[in-house]
Amino acid sequence: MRVPKRHPRYKSLRTREILSEMMERGIVARTGLIAHGRGEAFDYFLGERTPPEASLAASVAAFKLANARSPVISVNGNVAALAGKEIIKLSREIPAKLEVNLFHRSEGRIDLVVDFMESLGARGVLGRSARRRIPGLEQPRGRCSEGIYGADVVLVPLEDGDRAQALKAFGKLVIAIDLNPMSRTALVADVTIVDELTRSIPMLERHVRGAKAEPARYAKLVKGFDNHQNLLAVRDRMARRLMEESR
Amino acid sequence: MRVPKRHPRYKSLRTREILSEMMERGIVARTGLIAHGRGEAFDYFLGERTPPEASLAASVAAFKLANARSPVISVNGNVAALAGKEIIKLSREIPAKLEVNLFHRSEGRIDLVVDFMESLGARGVLGRSARRRIPGLEQPRGRCSEGIYGADVVLVPLEDGDRAQALKAFGKLVIAIDLNPMSRTALVADVTIVDELTRSIPMLERHVRGAKAEPARYAKLVKGFDNHQNLLAVRDRMARRLMEESR
Repeated sequence: MRVPKRHPRYKSLRTREILSEMMERGIVARTGLIAHGRGEAFDYFLGERTPPEASLAASVAAFKLANARSPVISVNGNVAALAGKEIIKLSREIPAKLEVNLFHRSEGRIDLVVDFMESLGARGVLGRSARRRIPGLEQPRGRCSEGIYGADVVLVPLEDGDRAQALKAFGKLVIAIDLNPMSRTALVADVTIVDELTRSIPMLERHVRGAKAEPARYAKLVKGFDNHQNLLAVRDRMARRLMEESR
Repeated sequence: MRVPKRHPRYKSLRTREILSEMMERGIVARTGLIAHGRGEAFDYFLGERTPPEASLAASVAAFKLANARSPVISVNGNVAALAGKEIIKLSREIPAKLEVNLFHRSEGRIDLVVDFMESLGARGVLGRSARRRIPGLEQPRGRCSEGIYGADVVLVPLEDGDRAQALKAFGKLVIAIDLNPMSRTALVADVTIVDELTRSIPMLERHVRGAKAEPARYAKLVKGFDNHQNLLAVRDRMARRLMEESR
């Protein structure tokens, strides 16, 4: 069944339908649906709008990505399903490699997600052969390809806390996109963009262009950035919205 | 996979398992998993405990249900899966009719949910033949049976905002159970119980017994009740928790 376009929550309902369809196709894991729901709740607290703190974090992240030696974007089922095209555009703008990495890893699903990304126009997606390991993670979650293994900067949209922590311990500069400012991923990352995925990826892409055009201005933002303080500011924003009397 | 009973998150993990099994059986919609994830996040901000505001709203709701001319409980897939037995007990205590109403309506799934409720001991569950319409809603979401059509008071646990609004516009007294105090359902309902489903249904049943035993005491609570103020109080409670956590 299609959600009628005039439903006031059309976008949110349509997103759910897309995830459901992608689950049927084997691209999204069942737990991916529950995780998406949790994210939706946090987005309510943001008023379903990008907060200034996310915009600042995205500026810093863009500078890091644009100036990285070997940047990689980690792609899982939810990321491919919700923002596959946008992720490809971002990877071209940086430019960065794409590597499929799944929390619920199975060769079949890896192939499905790589195929899906390629059907959207991605070229040279890594992840099929995962001969490398991220130290400190058990099999099969610790497996990765050359991309993440050799990267200096890794963008992990919607990442598991354990893996984010292991990447950090492995010496990567970790940029996370996570709607929960209290999640382990959010807390362990070097730069955390607390925003909804489909809003934040195009924003990040704009900032990558900005960071290339005005490196000095962006370098200044990077210098003054404190991820911990920025996360506390988002939490305060969420709390204020909850308390607002305006409704 | 079975979750060991002594696991600290046993109840939450077991609930996810039940929902997954029920999805396999066709009783829970795929989007029902997403809705559940969203609820999990809000419940986290309640500290996974019934707040006093929910207890007050349940008292008011119980009085309205116990004194209704023709009360109906609307049952969807998640409600049947998570609290089927408890809903049946509540419907007997009031007494109220049960009507299966699905956001993702299909005759097959309606039958599955009605059959499931009957397998738990429910009698005369409505919803199979839905010849009536709730004004202002497109097909097939606007379809309903005689129960909801003719009801004066409708209990809608986990309801879509559009339908809650249409029921209200249709002149029903709407009682909602919703973990999101900012959802349209929560805002449009006459009485909103912001609490987790399996905690709130038995609580509601206790209050129905209370409202029958001490009508004067409950009538007084109804008189002083302001749903809007009560929702703001829950929001304050969640906000305080958001600002306190891990500081």
